[in-house]
Amino acid sequence: MALIRPPIGDGVEVFFRPQGIAVIGASRVPGKVGYMVLYNLKSMYKGPLYPVNPRAREVLGLPVYPSILDVPDPVDLAVVAVPAQAVLRVVDEAGRRGVRGVIVLSAGFREVGGEGITLEKKLIEIVRKHGMRLIGPNCIGVYSPSTGVNATFFDPNRQGLPGPGPIAFISQSGALGAAVLDWAEARGIGISRFVSVGNKADVDEADLLAFLRRDSETRSIAMYIEGVSEGSRLRRALEETTPVKPVVVLKAGRSDAGARAAASHTGSLAGSYQLYQAVFRQTGVVPARSPEEMFDFALALALQPPMTGDRVAVITVGGGSGVMASDELSELGLHVPEFSPETQARLRRVLLPIASPRNPVDVTGSAVDEHMVESLRIVLESGEVDAVLLIPYFNLSGITDQLPDKLAKVLHEYSDRRIPVVASVTGGARAWSIARRLEKVAGIPVYPGEARAARALWALRLYGRWLQYIGEIQEISKA
Amino acid sequence: MALIRPPIGDGVEVFFRPQGIAVIGASRVPGKVGYMVLYNLKSMYKGPLYPVNPRAREVLGLPVYPSILDVPDPVDLAVVAVPAQAVLRVVDEAGRRGVRGVIVLSAGFREVGGEGITLEKKLIEIVRKHGMRLIGPNCIGVYSPSTGVNATFFDPNRQGLPGPGPIAFISQSGALGAAVLDWAEARGIGISRFVSVGNKADVDEADLLAFLRRDSETRSIAMYIEGVSEGSRLRRALEETTPVKPVVVLKAGRSDAGARAAASHTGSLAGSYQLYQAVFRQTGVVPARSPEEMFDFALALALQPPMTGDRVAVITVGGGSGVMASDELSELGLHVPEFSPETQARLRRVLLPIASPRNPVDVTGSAVDEHMVESLRIVLESGEVDAVLLIPYFNLSGITDQLPDKLAKVLHEYSDRRIPVVASVTGGARAWSIARRLEKVAGIPVYPGEARAARALWALRLYGRWLQYIGEIQEISKA
Repeated sequence: MALIRPPIGDGVEVFFRPQGIAVIGASRVPGKVGYMVLYNLKSMYKGPLYPVNPRAREVLGLPVYPSILDVPDPVDLAVVAVPAQAVLRVVDEAGRRGVRGVIVLSAGFREVGGEGITLEKKLIEIVRKHGMRLIGPNCIGVYSPSTGVNATFFDPNRQGLPGPGPIAFISQSGALGAAVLDWAEARGIGISRFVSVGNKADVDEADLLAFLRRDSETRSIAMYIEGVSEGSRLRRALEETTPVKPVVVLKAGRSDAGARAAASHTGSLAGSYQLYQAVFRQTGVVPARSPEEMFDFALALALQPPMTGDRVAVITVGGGSGVMASDELSELGLHVPEFSPETQARLRRVLLPIASPRNPVDVTGSAVDEHMVESLRIVLESGEVDAVLLIPYFNLSGITDQLPDKLAKVLHEYSDRRIPVVASVTGGARAWSIARRLEKVAGIPVYPGEARAARALWALRLYGRWLQYIGEIQEISKA
Repeated sequence: MALIRPPIGDGVEVFFRPQGIAVIGASRVPGKVGYMVLYNLKSMYKGPLYPVNPRAREVLGLPVYPSILDVPDPVDLAVVAVPAQAVLRVVDEAGRRGVRGVIVLSAGFREVGGEGITLEKKLIEIVRKHGMRLIGPNCIGVYSPSTGVNATFFDPNRQGLPGPGPIAFISQSGALGAAVLDWAEARGIGISRFVSVGNKADVDEADLLAFLRRDSETRSIAMYIEGVSEGSRLRRALEETTPVKPVVVLKAGRSDAGARAAASHTGSLAGSYQLYQAVFRQTGVVPARSPEEMFDFALALALQPPMTGDRVAVITVGGGSGVMASDELSELGLHVPEFSPETQARLRRVLLPIASPRNPVDVTGSAVDEHMVESLRIVLESGEVDAVLLIPYFNLSGITDQLPDKLAKVLHEYSDRRIPVVASVTGGARAWSIARRLEKVAGIPVYPGEARAARALWALRLYGRWLQYIGEIQEISKA
């Protein structure tokens, strides 16, 4: 029997747009994995849902089937939450039933060594035999809010779940993925697809990249990686993805101590970080150094065009923030050039006498909304910059909660210029509630502090440089 | 007439513990500076409050005095919110009335150049003549929550105000200071004293350091500096402060672009950052690179003892976080050593079979509170580490909101070991509400993400090294 591996990305869509879902190992006991996953699916999923358990009749008000073989149509996805020893049998049954995708949450496979390795090999054989795709084992599941798929065992009383949005997130660590989603929900960041890849016995990052680069809901892709066993496979997938969509990777295990920790955690050979760095550089990946930074970058890349040059205009209510922004941008190789005399004169006409029309434009703490709005307009019109960093202070009296809508209007007028705009906000809950509106109505990603906003611009510049570079290559090959 | 500058730090206490406060330029118009400052003082200050305004009889229910000369006892502090042209006269009257400290909020002095420079010189003459101390001009005021002094013109509907706490904060930028306080309130960080130093015509960072190092409410000092005109004065003050209390400095204007922005902002000569770096290194200052980092460091230094060695134990619920923490710590020159076989054996006895007893201790996502608590106990007892980084995941089911109290108990038992403990939390609102309790009941500073927690340990280690170094110097001079 030939165990043919499907082409990269083949058949992965079923995990995100299933016609019907069976939960094998559905449990009546609250807190158990087989209960939580059914509970979560039932809360969101609009399609038919089939709990499977030979020892139950009803769970959460749904009729239970003794075996997946008894489940009626349509069913093309099975979520498996039975002990490791029972997994092979139920996955084989799922294959016989015509299921196309299985998510195995159960642990006790390659990650435990010994018998677990054999068990995982047999699991792959069964999956291949039926031509199915498998996510896991030893994973926390799949979350796709727009299609109602919450095939995870998150505790809904403890775990925040982001709404639909433009960022796809692939995580090799389940618990970390969950914690990061909890943070993303609080931060107001939306997710297109989340996949905890677990042991990657079948579906891996390469498969998911192939799907995501064609996925209309995904505008940027964030990945947390500890180790990859098939480097060239990932490399090829990255090469084919970054010209279409930006990919941000957080590679853990950079240091010796980190690599050792990765080996105990996912059994990954973290590999030389230098090697990963080289691959990222050669494939146009934007590397991130922490989960927050990964999402900072993915958000900027999802909402804003890449930067086509190095020049940044800073428009700030607080002079000190302008100083810090200039420092951060300079240290990242971006420029904060003085404006031409003409642009300075135009700015001077709309600003307060105490304001500074150079760059940073310091509208001062006495400013009102219009000072920011008109400065933005003049700067976008000037042709002298490739990006804008806005620093409003929502704790001051002159800057109102109408500012986001006013800025959105100006950005809309100049959208054809494709000049990215990001913002930095320092402040408390009220400031952030207005800042969220900047993201929502104006599509301006907002960062806590100048350093993170500057880094986000750096990510936009790095990706912009990559696109310019591969465009150049294509020109040359055409010639 | 000799204009004698008072000894460093002399007479500064009045700004934080006044017997009675006059508000010169108190206004009946909501939104005006002279209204806001009176409003803010009235909301917090328990001592006598005297609005002064020749054209009003009553403001905010308080009787108004035509001149400070008419104000009854006790009054030793005056807050001045009149136009620049009127400042000299009212400050002179305050001096004649016996006031010991004046806070001049008004702008229009050195920062505007020309006439403003002359005006500021005359202001200093008047202050010296009466032997008063002056904060400002061109500042946002003073905030000392424990003594009810909110002599700022913050808008209470927009501006969050932190409660009392162990961190003093001196800011050269008013607006930035306000925004950072707004953030600190939301973050749950408490403040002992906040001073917006403005133009530093009289009281400067050196004066404030001299006061703060003897101030029992202050346990660490955070400073935002753009430029200093009297470097040797600041240097001496730092030298005398850091052996007693940790000082964290955020120096803006590191780059050319930043220095140029600082020159337009506060008229500061930012000076060579290399020079500042050298002074910080030679005086034991902990340098920070952003406002968030400044408070991250100040919080760790206020709540925890300095690190006396480089070895860190990581105790984590999520393996991925352990990998990232190891990376971050390693890159900062801190070590995550493997534990001795004895310690590993002790850990193995209390942990789940799937957990890792090496370092990082990975209690796994299936852990309950006791796995973290007992791991902490064993690690503190081991003598094998100089600090502990805890990474609880409050979004998982096993880790409860009782964990902070349980950890506090263990820390209390081993407090004589003087091993600092910090935590990293990734997650949403619920996770953070429990995390706050870690700070409150266990005194463990909590950071969003491993990178910032690792940097906080780096700050504790840097300060620990400094204390070891100067202790060494003292030993040598004794010998």
